[in-house]
Amino acid sequence: MSIYYSYNALLQTTHAILVSMGFSNEHATTCATVLLAAEKRGFATHGIARVGEYHRLWKAGRINTHPKLKIVRETPSTAVVDGNGTMGMIPAKFSMELAIEKAKNVGTGWVSTRNSSNFGIAGHYAMMALEHDMIGITMTNATPLVAPTFSAEAMLGTNPIAVAIPTLSHPPFVADFATAPINRGKFTMAAKKGEKLGFGYAQDSEGHPSDDPTILERGGAILPLGMDREHGSHKGYCLASIVDIFSAVFSGANYGPFVPPMVPYLNPLNQKVGEGVGHFFGAMRIDAFEEALVFKKRMDHWWETFKNAKPIEGKQVFIPGEIEFENEIRALKQGITLVPHVEKELLAVAEEQNVRSLLVAV
Amino acid sequence: MSIYYSYNALLQTTHAILVSMGFSNEHATTCATVLLAAEKRGFATHGIARVGEYHRLWKAGRINTHPKLKIVRETPSTAVVDGNGTMGMIPAKFSMELAIEKAKNVGTGWVSTRNSSNFGIAGHYAMMALEHDMIGITMTNATPLVAPTFSAEAMLGTNPIAVAIPTLSHPPFVADFATAPINRGKFTMAAKKGEKLGFGYAQDSEGHPSDDPTILERGGAILPLGMDREHGSHKGYCLASIVDIFSAVFSGANYGPFVPPMVPYLNPLNQKVGEGVGHFFGAMRIDAFEEALVFKKRMDHWWETFKNAKPIEGKQVFIPGEIEFENEIRALKQGITLVPHVEKELLAVAEEQNVRSLLVAV
Repeated sequence: MSIYYSYNALLQTTHAILVSMGFSNEHATTCATVLLAAEKRGFATHGIARVGEYHRLWKAGRINTHPKLKIVRETPSTAVVDGNGTMGMIPAKFSMELAIEKAKNVGTGWVSTRNSSNFGIAGHYAMMALEHDMIGITMTNATPLVAPTFSAEAMLGTNPIAVAIPTLSHPPFVADFATAPINRGKFTMAAKKGEKLGFGYAQDSEGHPSDDPTILERGGAILPLGMDREHGSHKGYCLASIVDIFSAVFSGANYGPFVPPMVPYLNPLNQKVGEGVGHFFGAMRIDAFEEALVFKKRMDHWWETFKNAKPIEGKQVFIPGEIEFENEIRALKQGITLVPHVEKELLAVAEEQNVRSLLVAV
Repeated sequence: MSIYYSYNALLQTTHAILVSMGFSNEHATTCATVLLAAEKRGFATHGIARVGEYHRLWKAGRINTHPKLKIVRETPSTAVVDGNGTMGMIPAKFSMELAIEKAKNVGTGWVSTRNSSNFGIAGHYAMMALEHDMIGITMTNATPLVAPTFSAEAMLGTNPIAVAIPTLSHPPFVADFATAPINRGKFTMAAKKGEKLGFGYAQDSEGHPSDDPTILERGGAILPLGMDREHGSHKGYCLASIVDIFSAVFSGANYGPFVPPMVPYLNPLNQKVGEGVGHFFGAMRIDAFEEALVFKKRMDHWWETFKNAKPIEGKQVFIPGEIEFENEIRALKQGITLVPHVEKELLAVAEEQNVRSLLVAV
């Protein structure tokens, strides 16, 4: 039977671990909030499961706990931010706030960020725009695990895209998805459970189809969204490439296969082509295009129109963000469960950092 | 054996047909150029094959040949354009030029366009940004033929996304793709040849898998990019939705199932939720993020890195836009072939419009 922990207990434990690593109170709050947002919204692969990964990177000297963020270039609607090699959540929040400020002034704001690291769930930053009556956009490059169409080598991350769009009286439209059929967290989960993946997700080191969830550890790769050339994998490859270029070629971060990996079975390449991981953020003021109230009423109608589409028998049509919205309400009410190996690792990190566990079952 | 026509012969014939329909010389040039760009780049489904479709829409009184374009709202980085119910190429070119002007002033420009119609290939407009050392972005909504995940009804178009990014000494990076595994032109082509589609592309009116290329004419739908829920069709559904919202909810065009259809087997709905078809355009000045020369050198390195990825045996890795770049060179040198039913329809339209055919084989 699963143990349920309260949102606050998990937030405080994560916060305490980050403070013990040397982060300021404010920065630890930023990072813990994003990790817990993943848990609340149902993206367990991007939540507490990542605490151990950051902790390993920190021990390897790859995380700066006292970052000085810098705006290195800007125009009225754009900027480039340097994250000074810290946890991705810190420059990501700063960059999204900057995009929102620019949108207030000239209608839209766009920020490309370098010298960062994994920032958790992309959707969290895109959603920061909602309360300002703006559309938010977030992208990031990531550990190179995805093979372009017809490539035997992994060259790209699962490079997610998130877009958050306000409505008037329904949950906001929030799309937040990797540009591959599944993310690397799903491989780890399947491997831990001893399950096969099914086909259409991965290839081995020669590019042959594989259903082995440990194949990434032996030179295999994730397929792009679209699965194979006949079903449009070149489109997933295009999307992941666009995310990579906006995030890293604009900002001067590492791109493609040079992105420093977050997984223990890949080592950073000796060749660097930039600084750290790259992200891209956008904010568009609704009333730069249409009166906010008119737009949000239209979005309500859009939402209802799609929700009322005739479903396939036994199924239900969901609006992007709808399931995550419900997950969030449930998590705050019922608490959050962790899978056993994630719970065990969290407790081990807490012990190693001399953090008294604040975890109490609900 | 195929007949090759010169680019100029096809351009002039198309131009003459459009002038005979009442378009100004300038507007006919704009439209014919975009249709021929599709032929040159190898997207025959979006080229001369569309002349008959526009001609039918024009005869049905659904195309305004004397449009007055209007900017209905703007900020320093954004605008909304009304296309006055004409052929999509005319407001699309105008809107992209406006996005480029705004990017010159404040770093980026973003335009949402309503009251338009099908604009041909998205990539053509995105590529207009390249000569200004900008990245170009284009999206459009389209005839509702794609079913959201778990929906038995078509609610979205194949809503394409195009992104053009300059390099220094390689063909530009140009991604230009429908957010479905294949576009509706592929269904028509397969049906004309009497071929089956294969699975993973379409469903029947109940949502069951179908390989019948005529299924769209009987209540069937195209699947989103990703094919099924397990392989990420909800991500393709998200992408097509984002394109729909940026193109139509921003601008006040028709969205989702209300988009006026371009195909003879679907009738426009009685309910209108906006004006015509919607598009979205973006231009980002490279030097709003990084010195243009530095960026383009990085893009050259990106291009070479991906081109040199180890290919799957017997295959080759392509960079987005590479094949189309080569197609364009070949088309200008060797001429362009039309499939028999497209050639026949072009000649029939020319005859109906009393346009003396300018088609001479190369």
